[in-house]
Amino acid sequence: MHVLIVHAHPEPASFNGALTGQAVATLTEAGHTVEVSDLYAMRFKAVADADDYATREDPAYLRIDREQTWAHRHDAVAPDVLAEQAKLTRADLLILQYPMWWFSMPAILKGWADRVLTRGFAYLPGHKYDTGLLAGKLAMVSVTTGTSADTYAPDGIDGALLDVLWPVHNGLLRYSGFDVLQPFATHMPGKADDEGRDEMLRRYADRLRHLESVPRLFFHPRSDYGPDERLLPDVIPASGFQHRPR
Amino acid sequence: MHVLIVHAHPEPASFNGALTGQAVATLTEAGHTVEVSDLYAMRFKAVADADDYATREDPAYLRIDREQTWAHRHDAVAPDVLAEQAKLTRADLLILQYPMWWFSMPAILKGWADRVLTRGFAYLPGHKYDTGLLAGKLAMVSVTTGTSADTYAPDGIDGALLDVLWPVHNGLLRYSGFDVLQPFATHMPGKADDEGRDEMLRRYADRLRHLESVPRLFFHPRSDYGPDERLLPDVIPASGFQHRPR
Repeated sequence: MHVLIVHAHPEPASFNGALTGQAVATLTEAGHTVEVSDLYAMRFKAVADADDYATREDPAYLRIDREQTWAHRHDAVAPDVLAEQAKLTRADLLILQYPMWWFSMPAILKGWADRVLTRGFAYLPGHKYDTGLLAGKLAMVSVTTGTSADTYAPDGIDGALLDVLWPVHNGLLRYSGFDVLQPFATHMPGKADDEGRDEMLRRYADRLRHLESVPRLFFHPRSDYGPDERLLPDVIPASGFQHRPR
Repeated sequence: MHVLIVHAHPEPASFNGALTGQAVATLTEAGHTVEVSDLYAMRFKAVADADDYATREDPAYLRIDREQTWAHRHDAVAPDVLAEQAKLTRADLLILQYPMWWFSMPAILKGWADRVLTRGFAYLPGHKYDTGLLAGKLAMVSVTTGTSADTYAPDGIDGALLDVLWPVHNGLLRYSGFDVLQPFATHMPGKADDEGRDEMLRRYADRLRHLESVPRLFFHPRSDYGPDERLLPDVIPASGFQHRPR
């Protein structure tokens, strides 16, 4: 496989950096090829705005989705966005590596999604979820947290990890067509000693060596939804909705 | 009340702009005072990085949470962050006004959260959720979407709106101590005609005129959690977890 790691941490010597280093080494050793977009090192432009469009379909009123589509069709996509899209096109597996900040991604990574996963490249009307334009590719979140695994349990104060990641998994990734692997979470590396951190890195290497056996998250296929994009009554089990991955 | 609207849309003439204009007019008319942080107009710096710290506790290794706390204690908070914190300190109600981009906030607003809701200002060890440092204030999300209310129904393809907003509601807002009002969602304003949009603005004005009767989202109080920050067995109802707002 060819793997793209999109890495978002401001400190190169951080544990996120160690995880990405581990991923490059382990995946390469296993025969994969890897490239890394280190967003902070690249000083990646985080904010989707008018500056992204040298020419516009409508210079008087900025609608990002319309201009994204127009830029795509007119070979007018901003060079830094185009470079990221080319990396995605090459990739069989996308790994998002980031620390949980406010129960979401650092803004620079959110901006990468806002600017790179464009209408025209990642989705179009009639091409979302199962039929998203990046269908056939795999994706996995590798996230570090500042609190314990207990706080991210289903009855934990921060909410179940899969609930917290729902907008990323179902939204960003599945919407674009990816098959999504179970996330890899490293809890509280900042509180671990050297031995603890080595163990965390070994766990990650182990995950990466056995990607083929990592469960994929469940999402209802398009055929489970009616024309109103709500689940058909007969696919809702008696126990209630099974809408999010379990 | 004094109200702070943090507004994130790149097009001043957008429907998000109309909603914020409506809010300023309606709230002022009702006797409240209002200020607006228009993040795109301010060209607000979205990325939390080393440039935020003129002096550092640890110049050799950047840990954002540690430097935030240190800056707070040493009157060394970046001026643009300090200005936003002063607005929050004055505010009784915070409104986040944004379009749903990738089932989350535009990066510029995520960056506002990353940089402004600092360790030392919004939370500290022992001061989170019920006891978050912004306790006593109200918050409300006002979001526009590109898809229908059906897609955000509990059985909708995008997931229940309260699930999609869980990281914002429980994470960002409740974690900092806010009481959180039911969100206000405007679906597909881009597809509505003038009359439809006028009706959407009237609905929003109506919401803002009756804030005192808007339900607050339910979050378990700290006392429902054990020392491991998981719900105590006797507060989990027989029907299963009631962890997220319903």
